[in-house]
Amino acid sequence: MSDVWGKNIQFTIFGESHGVAIGGVLSSLPSGVEIDFDAINYELERRNHRASYSTPRAEADEYEILSGVYNGKTTGSALAFIIRNQDTKSGDYANLNNTPRPGHADYPASLRYDGFNDYRGGGHFSGRLTAPLVVAGAIAKQILKAKGIDVFAHILSIGNVCGKSLADGVKADELNNVRQKLFAADDSLEQDMMAEIEKYRKDGNSIGGIIECAISNMPVGIGEPFFESVESRLSSMLFSIPAVKGVEFGKGFEITKMSGFDANDNYRYVDGKIVTDTNNNGGLLGGITNGAPIIFKTAIKATPSISIEQNTVDLEKRENTTLKIKGRHDTCIVPRAVPVVEAAASLVILDMLQGRM
Amino acid sequence: MSDVWGKNIQFTIFGESHGVAIGGVLSSLPSGVEIDFDAINYELERRNHRASYSTPRAEADEYEILSGVYNGKTTGSALAFIIRNQDTKSGDYANLNNTPRPGHADYPASLRYDGFNDYRGGGHFSGRLTAPLVVAGAIAKQILKAKGIDVFAHILSIGNVCGKSLADGVKADELNNVRQKLFAADDSLEQDMMAEIEKYRKDGNSIGGIIECAISNMPVGIGEPFFESVESRLSSMLFSIPAVKGVEFGKGFEITKMSGFDANDNYRYVDGKIVTDTNNNGGLLGGITNGAPIIFKTAIKATPSISIEQNTVDLEKRENTTLKIKGRHDTCIVPRAVPVVEAAASLVILDMLQGRM
Amino acid sequence: MSDVWGKNIQFTIFGESHGVAIGGVLSSLPSGVEIDFDAINYELERRNHRASYSTPRAEADEYEILSGVYNGKTTGSALAFIIRNQDTKSGDYANLNNTPRPGHADYPASLRYDGFNDYRGGGHFSGRLTAPLVVAGAIAKQILKAKGIDVFAHILSIGNVCGKSLADGVKADELNNVRQKLFAADDSLEQDMMAEIEKYRKDGNSIGGIIECAISNMPVGIGEPFFESVESRLSSMLFSIPAVKGVEFGKGFEITKMSGFDANDNYRYVDGKIVTDTNNNGGLLGGITNGAPIIFKTAIKATPSISIEQNTVDLEKRENTTLKIKGRHDTCIVPRAVPVVEAAASLVILDMLQGRM
Amino acid sequence: MSDVWGKNIQFTIFGESHGVAIGGVLSSLPSGVEIDFDAINYELERRNHRASYSTPRAEADEYEILSGVYNGKTTGSALAFIIRNQDTKSGDYANLNNTPRPGHADYPASLRYDGFNDYRGGGHFSGRLTAPLVVAGAIAKQILKAKGIDVFAHILSIGNVCGKSLADGVKADELNNVRQKLFAADDSLEQDMMAEIEKYRKDGNSIGGIIECAISNMPVGIGEPFFESVESRLSSMLFSIPAVKGVEFGKGFEITKMSGFDANDNYRYVDGKIVTDTNNNGGLLGGITNGAPIIFKTAIKATPSISIEQNTVDLEKRENTTLKIKGRHDTCIVPRAVPVVEAAASLVILDMLQGRM
Repeated sequence: MSDVWGKNIQFTIFGESHGVAIGGVLSSLPSGVEIDFDAINYELERRNHRASYSTPRAEADEYEILSGVYNGKTTGSALAFIIRNQDTKSGDYANLNNTPRPGHADYPASLRYDGFNDYRGGGHFSGRLTAPLVVAGAIAKQILKAKGIDVFAHILSIGNVCGKSLADGVKADELNNVRQKLFAADDSLEQDMMAEIEKYRKDGNSIGGIIECAISNMPVGIGEPFFESVESRLSSMLFSIPAVKGVEFGKGFEITKMSGFDANDNYRYVDGKIVTDTNNNGGLLGGITNGAPIIFKTAIKATPSISIEQNTVDLEKRENTTLKIKGRHDTCIVPRAVPVVEAAASLVILDMLQGRM
Repeated sequence: MSDVWGKNIQFTIFGESHGVAIGGVLSSLPSGVEIDFDAINYELERRNHRASYSTPRAEADEYEILSGVYNGKTTGSALAFIIRNQDTKSGDYANLNNTPRPGHADYPASLRYDGFNDYRGGGHFSGRLTAPLVVAGAIAKQILKAKGIDVFAHILSIGNVCGKSLADGVKADELNNVRQKLFAADDSLEQDMMAEIEKYRKDGNSIGGIIECAISNMPVGIGEPFFESVESRLSSMLFSIPAVKGVEFGKGFEITKMSGFDANDNYRYVDGKIVTDTNNNGGLLGGITNGAPIIFKTAIKATPSISIEQNTVDLEKRENTTLKIKGRHDTCIVPRAVPVVEAAASLVILDMLQGRM
Repeated sequence: MSDVWGKNIQFTIFGESHGVAIGGVLSSLPSGVEIDFDAINYELERRNHRASYSTPRAEADEYEILSGVYNGKTTGSALAFIIRNQDTKSGDYANLNNTPRPGHADYPASLRYDGFNDYRGGGHFSGRLTAPLVVAGAIAKQILKAKGIDVFAHILSIGNVCGKSLADGVKADELNNVRQKLFAADDSLEQDMMAEIEKYRKDGNSIGGIIECAISNMPVGIGEPFFESVESRLSSMLFSIPAVKGVEFGKGFEITKMSGFDANDNYRYVDGKIVTDTNNNGGLLGGITNGAPIIFKTAIKATPSISIEQNTVDLEKRENTTLKIKGRHDTCIVPRAVPVVEAAASLVILDMLQGRM
Repeated sequence: MSDVWGKNIQFTIFGESHGVAIGGVLSSLPSGVEIDFDAINYELERRNHRASYSTPRAEADEYEILSGVYNGKTTGSALAFIIRNQDTKSGDYANLNNTPRPGHADYPASLRYDGFNDYRGGGHFSGRLTAPLVVAGAIAKQILKAKGIDVFAHILSIGNVCGKSLADGVKADELNNVRQKLFAADDSLEQDMMAEIEKYRKDGNSIGGIIECAISNMPVGIGEPFFESVESRLSSMLFSIPAVKGVEFGKGFEITKMSGFDANDNYRYVDGKIVTDTNNNGGLLGGITNGAPIIFKTAIKATPSISIEQNTVDLEKRENTTLKIKGRHDTCIVPRAVPVVEAAASLVILDMLQGRM
């Protein structure tokens, strides 16, 4: 288990889906930062967003800060917080330990922990662990915002319905205009995406999508190559989020089909400032920021929890069997993952800027 | 600068393209491992491979081991090695510092290091730094091989010419059959790929591609979530390789278009062993190995060094200008990056297995 | 702030003396370890020990485990626990922020955190933070005990009353005989030490002492030189304990007066096993265990909280002033520090053994 | 093996006494620092100092910088350097592997590395490894000096001949006056110390001593408690130096005999600046600098290499035997360890200041 992350700040995460509480500890924050508690709640609500395609487990997700804040400001000591678990029905999960759910961590986790992991509700592997990530990220995002840095994610695609990429021309100063939207930056696709989800919902199936994120107003020259390129740091954190199967920067995999001449983002002076017209490289060259917005995409697979019968094995009897997972599940976790991606990115950027701004 | 990588083993990399030497230090290796020095040379030669589309800078790349090996076996102390730089023509690069090359690290690096970085030949950002990575990786690969673990990469695509993915059905035991090929696992595409490269070479342009890698015979249960998933560790290292713009596991971004039912890799018993028929998740669930081969793809952008005139800025005069890079350059670095990807993956896997096997 | 410690296990500590709660997160523990909850309470009670010379703040120190334990056994996920603060009288401390207490962290901390640190009761610098250390250490000690490794500390001296050192001939198998004693391993000195404390108590003054610790039954060959010698790891942790001003191994500073011939611990075979008759080096050579008990001493300074008037400064008025600290304080914290030293040592040894036994 | 040290800067050390070369890699240095190459040589010469009581192995210790310096200034990339080994007579050591030298790492190291460690001349455990430490430290010391911070060590005692401690009243501004002395800060003791060494030299025996170090002009508020107190960081590094058996700050172990009233360093204003008259706490409170010089002592044991016959074991025959070590050895390594202590301290302080000044 490696539940501690970070270099200049540290974030320790803990908890299991059906345990006493989940939470985290955010260390090495600067002292004297005024905490906007409502902003933390706002991010938790975005993550907890309910729609027709979401699970009805309606947890309050009330966080309690235990340390590191005095008179509403950070003390510089570790900021610890917890969210107590409620509304858990462990009975739903008990039998799954013997018949591992395809696509879930059940089988590899039981081998990793010799069967002692808390398997109820996915335990430590539950998407529920993204709640502490969102709390910590909300704090990081506040600090970045005060420095003028904006972290913004949106749904680029759901299944086969794909919107317009920020890498295709949306400029840094347009990013805030789309912030208020629940869904895709490209407004007109919201209904199509809802329809795409509905196709899978009625069958008890599920569907994934792509989340794109932009970080604007980054100072030039941030990044620690060889091994701590901005891409290395961001991808490392993003692949900690359950269900993420791919991360790409700028044009990403598409750039492999572009010639060097087309892919290179040319420099020019505009009002005495060096800019690039294109942003195929996602704001990063040699692992270091070049002043253009950092743009990346994350591939979120369909949640493996579906109501359709699937083939699996009976570990005790050592034979093949089938499994039909009871209860209701999210058809699509992509909308709820948007604030999680923002939180993850905010933590990474704060860590890289700490002591540099 | 963060030139040290690793947790259970450590790899420190150093050097600049036109400095005295490049090299590395590999620490915390197990003691008593017999080193196959020829195997290291074999990997360096793969990386140094010359073809019509490659740069003619023909460096010997002779490595010298300085410590950590006694009587041909590892001592358990740090294994340091160097490769002295030769055949460098610094004159070619001198003027580039003032007119940063688009797509290169020149501009962000000069801001990151306040203009003190050794810009000659790209300095620390040169692809030349992948040579120490290959030496270290070759040692890691030997140790993995002795444990039965095979790390194999091939060219999946060059520009628009794309072969067959290992994630689409090639089984673990077929992987070794394609090992001997210089190029793509899919043999018939080699000529098409050569032709694709030639299209760009004649114009002084360049082209990228996708490298796919498979790691077979991994034990089940390796991975350290929350923050040190196998994907986190691998992507973090892979994004340290210059020109990598995307990393995806299993079906990667394609999986976002698959339903949960289709994406889930179902379990069944075959000869008393649990296997999956498909490998859409690339051998990884919840950040932990499930016994199927780990499969990932890396997007390699076209090398930004091209002979065509490009727009850039004159930093001294603070005005727009154009740049025509002299000298000859690789049209396509993808073939030479194959052993680099294998080296990077080998280091990560050895680090994660250390103390566990 | 660096509130995270460890390499193979990680311990994150948080809390302030008068905040909501103090606690910790212990990560990367092996899974399936049965937790002895009473043993944790036993150690907390040792730390909370009350005598005539102790502070009457009688906190319950009830710990609550939030995660990482299922059915009484470790899950392998992060084990988080909290102790809520009670019985705090912040009024006693409010004025101290402007007139820093000599010998305390007040003045350097206010500069370190720009005045935003929670100064009440010493905040994060309070000896109260040793409670989470004791909880984590109690768990580590259990795991070590199951492996046959015994961590034992005793009071070697209080002020000028000094007992017999374990380095002077007490053998490993005698260590357990003295375990039950509250105080010094050398029984006859208990009354003298009590008398020494009383001398300072009646004046509202305080006194320090030396704690000696032995770790027996260590396997030979543990230690990671160059930079992670056993001494480096232990001292690093021990100097995190408030009031520790010195750490020495074996004969420590006394060894500087011994000739090489006298200081060298000669080897001989006894019953087919290699032993040393003396243990001047404290079980450590070249930073690695040699099979003899690890023996070290820690110097604990007198608690700086005294009732006698002292000279200090008024930070607001920028002038000299005097300070008389109200409230009652421990005359001697050395007895309560004994389980803290054991806890600290247990965490270090578990970390170094993890993955090696 | 843990051959990498540091957080904000990193230092990787490598090499074995009779291998090809020893050296190090210093990463994350600020860019643009002009390197004083002569100052590095000066420190190497101090470490290599020859006197009647020293070993006659006269190595040139010529260092070669391989990377990280361009036009005489740091580039910000890893600064790698090597010192090639010369004048090694491995024959002297060959038989020692079977009859481990008392007081040396021979026996624990052979178990730690399963017999594969390079035992010639002590291999990685040789005092020779302090040469790369001195090179790296000399660079760190230059950077600190440019910031006005002075790191100064002197011999406090040799055997039973003990000088005056800097903690006993020598003021910060007097420190530089004693810098030029080869030996003790207290001049009059130099002859007595030489005589003390001579007593042991004539018998082929050896003797240790205490080195005291002061770091002056430190900014107030440096230190990262809970786990990265200045004491934790310094002690961790100092105990990496071979032969160090104790580290204490300020009055150290003596402070345990002082009352709180006497031990507390009272504050007062002098010329508008807060100072303390005494420095019993060695400039550190709560793990953080308080503006007084950091003062610490390190106990250096007598070198275990002596010419007198000693008892040991024959590992092959599994029986007791005696050993008489051939060749000539240093009678006292304390004088040569002075620049090593300064180097170690300089690296730690630079690491803690990086990004803070």
